[in-house]
Amino acid sequence: MFKKTLVAVSLAAASLASATAMAAENVDLLIKNATVLTMDEDKNVYEKGLVAVKENKIVAVTDGSDLKEFEAKKVIDADGDIVMPGLINTHTHVSMTVFRSLADDVPDRLHRYIFPLESKLVTRDMVRIGAQLGNVEMLKGGVTTYADMYYFEDEVAKTVDEIGMRAILGETVIKFPVADAANAEEGIKYAVNFIEEYKDHPRITPAFAPHAPYTNTTETLQKITELSKKYDVPVLIHLAESDREDQVIAERSGGMSPVEYMADIGALTPNLVGAHVINVSDSDIELLKKHDVGIAHNMSANIKSAKGVSPALKMFDDGLRIGLGTDGPMSGNTISTLDEFNQVAKVHKLVNKDRAAMPPMKVVEMATIGAARALHMEDTIGSLEVGKLADIIVIDTKAPNMVPVYNPYSALVYSAYAANVKHTIVDGQILMKDRTMTTVDEDKIRNEALAFADKVRKTVIESGEVVQ
Amino acid sequence: MFKKTLVAVSLAAASLASATAMAAENVDLLIKNATVLTMDEDKNVYEKGLVAVKENKIVAVTDGSDLKEFEAKKVIDADGDIVMPGLINTHTHVSMTVFRSLADDVPDRLHRYIFPLESKLVTRDMVRIGAQLGNVEMLKGGVTTYADMYYFEDEVAKTVDEIGMRAILGETVIKFPVADAANAEEGIKYAVNFIEEYKDHPRITPAFAPHAPYTNTTETLQKITELSKKYDVPVLIHLAESDREDQVIAERSGGMSPVEYMADIGALTPNLVGAHVINVSDSDIELLKKHDVGIAHNMSANIKSAKGVSPALKMFDDGLRIGLGTDGPMSGNTISTLDEFNQVAKVHKLVNKDRAAMPPMKVVEMATIGAARALHMEDTIGSLEVGKLADIIVIDTKAPNMVPVYNPYSALVYSAYAANVKHTIVDGQILMKDRTMTTVDEDKIRNEALAFADKVRKTVIESGEVVQ
Repeated sequence: MFKKTLVAVSLAAASLASATAMAAENVDLLIKNATVLTMDEDKNVYEKGLVAVKENKIVAVTDGSDLKEFEAKKVIDADGDIVMPGLINTHTHVSMTVFRSLADDVPDRLHRYIFPLESKLVTRDMVRIGAQLGNVEMLKGGVTTYADMYYFEDEVAKTVDEIGMRAILGETVIKFPVADAANAEEGIKYAVNFIEEYKDHPRITPAFAPHAPYTNTTETLQKITELSKKYDVPVLIHLAESDREDQVIAERSGGMSPVEYMADIGALTPNLVGAHVINVSDSDIELLKKHDVGIAHNMSANIKSAKGVSPALKMFDDGLRIGLGTDGPMSGNTISTLDEFNQVAKVHKLVNKDRAAMPPMKVVEMATIGAARALHMEDTIGSLEVGKLADIIVIDTKAPNMVPVYNPYSALVYSAYAANVKHTIVDGQILMKDRTMTTVDEDKIRNEALAFADKVRKTVIESGEVVQ
Repeated sequence: MFKKTLVAVSLAAASLASATAMAAENVDLLIKNATVLTMDEDKNVYEKGLVAVKENKIVAVTDGSDLKEFEAKKVIDADGDIVMPGLINTHTHVSMTVFRSLADDVPDRLHRYIFPLESKLVTRDMVRIGAQLGNVEMLKGGVTTYADMYYFEDEVAKTVDEIGMRAILGETVIKFPVADAANAEEGIKYAVNFIEEYKDHPRITPAFAPHAPYTNTTETLQKITELSKKYDVPVLIHLAESDREDQVIAERSGGMSPVEYMADIGALTPNLVGAHVINVSDSDIELLKKHDVGIAHNMSANIKSAKGVSPALKMFDDGLRIGLGTDGPMSGNTISTLDEFNQVAKVHKLVNKDRAAMPPMKVVEMATIGAARALHMEDTIGSLEVGKLADIIVIDTKAPNMVPVYNPYSALVYSAYAANVKHTIVDGQILMKDRTMTTVDEDKIRNEALAFADKVRKTVIESGEVVQ
């Protein structure tokens, strides 16, 4: 098995004539001397490869033998470091960074702690401050695109626009009063306005985010399905996540599972991205595949809350659209997908009682092109291929935890920290260089978050009001 | 629950009159403005605390109100960062860093891959080169003391002596020919020589390391037990780790478990530290407690190899001496205990189906004073208390993944990366300052490891000889 992997790596170097065909002479950015993990269909790996970028697109990915054919405005000498597609976080609530490490292990935490906390503290300011911090955390951890579900998503959008990353931003719709809507109907209106405002943004895809099947009515879910078709936008939802959800939906539907119910009401569509998808049967999985639904697998949050392990490996092997997510920073608690790698690989081995289950290459696939598939964005992002958008990260292989690298997939999954990401490039722009942000002031963002945290301390900790 | 934690944190600040009693005026090192996690018996936390060090010992740990009473040669302003006891890695094979990411998921890997690999490549040079790299990785990840089992441990000892850290180094004894001994008898001789050489080293405790019950004879295990009493040194062993071990020992002993067998032959003593301890019954656990055996819990390696989850939470709650280990870099694959925190907390929640199981404070305890107890070193290390050795780490709380910190235990367990360790102090000496090593040349060490990795590639990958 090991030998085969190595052979695959070596063979890759021989098969690149085609990749060089589109190589341009004058490029904006050239990354050279890299261990290039393309994550293309053949999983080509180039040992001393290069990636060339013109404007916001990749124009060459090669073994580096044609290095002299490029004239570049900017050159990054990777010096053997791993160069790979930017990570895609398929599920988070970015603004919740400001609540991270609050009341971590409270039973029934969503209903007993988080919803009451949010009813007190979610404001436009909170959403902006938390998103700014989370964007920095993700970019420093190699995440170049993320899918978000929260309130005041127009505030999140402004931060994404400013910092330069890519995102699908889902405005939450839920049946009880929340910070930006008194009910689901108002939530839908908010979402529609947001969608109309951001529909044509080059890096932001606005979306609907009905919180979950059990926290919305059938009518709301159907209306959102209709509108998502009309506007051709994604629908992000928590799906098949908890026993509570199973019970509520079974009562509502006469015994259906959440997935069956969603299919029954016409809400399973290719626009849908379901997060978690833990409590699913084989027939539920077939339904999800049939309707081409995307799936966000959030191992870290799911085991922290003792909800169980999603059959993500089976769904991946069955050809479903599935990628890794982190869930929000009150759940995971970090939001760089790299932090999931280790746990995804190992916990699936544990529950499958098979050390060969969920090998590193699958984990990396689920964080890149697999995650792009989950968000139906595989034509534009998720791999390093000519014509794709230039979302690229460089991973430091000289940090002591990364030495040596016999197998780059293993090194990424079993050894790498998010803090080993050295440079992050989105849409052709270097947003982090040598661990330093280039488009925002990290100190200012941190200080704003710390000031907000003081407010949280005063509001909910010192008063003790939120704990029930 | 959350409220209680916070109250505990606040109350701590009120109860320090006693801690200041020994405060000296002139000290060598003063760390101030720190969130001090003492990990003392009351788990005192000081929010703007200080730690003072004279020579190699802690002379004050306070809430900082007496800051003006100290004159220090060196001052570290922690600026709110977390200051805590250095982490103690209770089980590793440090020299195997040079093999990291080789053949990760091969079935029956130890016997089919690792032993053959080692028979070709383990030399004095390999042990030294791997240990140098691993020491740097551990110190940069906040590990100040580790327990090691390998060959040529005198080479490991030289690297530990040079870099300035603390270690229990166990020379392996095993029944088949290995790099430094043709059989167990020679292994014991090697170990005795090593023990005699290092018996009086201030930071190194030499030890015996019989590989496992099933890879040694009863005679060997009994002889080592005797000698460990004679020399008053620890015995490090892999124990109750695998089904294979269960079978071999059951055949040898007429149906006993490995723990029962070890008790039966007189090899369960307070000198013993058993690594893994997965396949144990409640009565095995009682035996381990009765004989005051130390236990190394290696979550990451155990689930990566799909061996299962040790009942570590039960053993901890039952009052056994148990601490966290990482296992070797071919197993885990990183060797900073901080990398285990997240997985230890979450996987125990998963298997116990209880999100409140294994709370962060227990995880941090198992990495510090709990790990010290596992190694029978709790009188000298594992907590920040007056009179203890000055093994101290500072964790950066300004990295975006660490912001904000409402609860320092949560932040450490659910958010921190090993790369968030800012300074590492062992025996009163700052061995890493602002992520830079002070006593060794990290670049030189890395380059030596990379050169050795090239040799590994040529020997076992390109030839394909080792894969069976």
